[in-house]
Amino acid sequence: MKTEKVEAPKEAKVPQKKVKAPPKPPGKAGENAVLIGRKPVMNYVVACLTFFNTGANEICIKARGRSISRAVDTVELLRRAFLKGLGLKQIKIGTEEITQEEGRKSNVSTIEITVAKTESKCNLFGNF
Amino acid sequence: MKTEKVEAPKEAKVPQKKVKAPPKPPGKAGENAVLIGRKPVMNYVVACLTFFNTGANEICIKARGRSISRAVDTVELLRRAFLKGLGLKQIKIGTEEITQEEGRKSNVSTIEITVAKTESKCNLFGNF
Repeated sequence: MKTEKVEAPKEAKVPQKKVKAPPKPPGKAGENAVLIGRKPVMNYVVACLTFFNTGANEICIKARGRSISRAVDTVELLRRAFLKGLGLKQIKIGTEEITQEEGRKSNVSTIEITVAKTESKCNLFGNF
Repeated sequence: MKTEKVEAPKEAKVPQKKVKAPPKPPGKAGENAVLIGRKPVMNYVVACLTFFNTGANEICIKARGRSISRAVDTVELLRRAFLKGLGLKQIKIGTEEITQEEGRKSNVSTIEITVAKTESKCNLFGNF
């Protein structure tokens, strides 16, 4: 599989707010979960394809805050361009409470999109 | 109802990309739809509350591109702080094709979240 190594943009390039990037959501990252951050969408698409190519049938794509739109982009790009037979199984939205260093608490929205492979047609390996 | 008039931030404040803001999604904006743009989340929460207070039982919250995370924020704020009995009915994601002025076509992800009132308990009008 020919994957392009796209390097993640350095944090410094993003205009930073005073609140620094929250830590990754705790736990539950085991079961084929792809956590969406600030890297280019293609990085996460490749991560998902890698999961599927190693035998996974179902992936959970998780994001929070402003990365939520990137999670939707990832799923849509995956369905549109790479895995045509990919089915949307579940979309969950919610809120997580984050405690900042100063002790202040703030709420951040989360999304979890579960996608499942229905047919094993992958665009990377040949024509449909 | 005491609502704070939050003025929308001027477009100029947002660091603009070369592609200007896409036009509102065509059609289907009739049936109690709230289209999420770049204004503060509270504006959209108030818009939803206004729909519910004028008798609507179901609202469709639509967004595309980077506003998707704001749509999730709106629903979560609405459920958490204003309408505790609000139920999530359906979440749909998709892709829309946009033709820019130069004739180039690009794809943008969309989200549609349908929420329905199950109990008429509104935090703005009293205690639970």
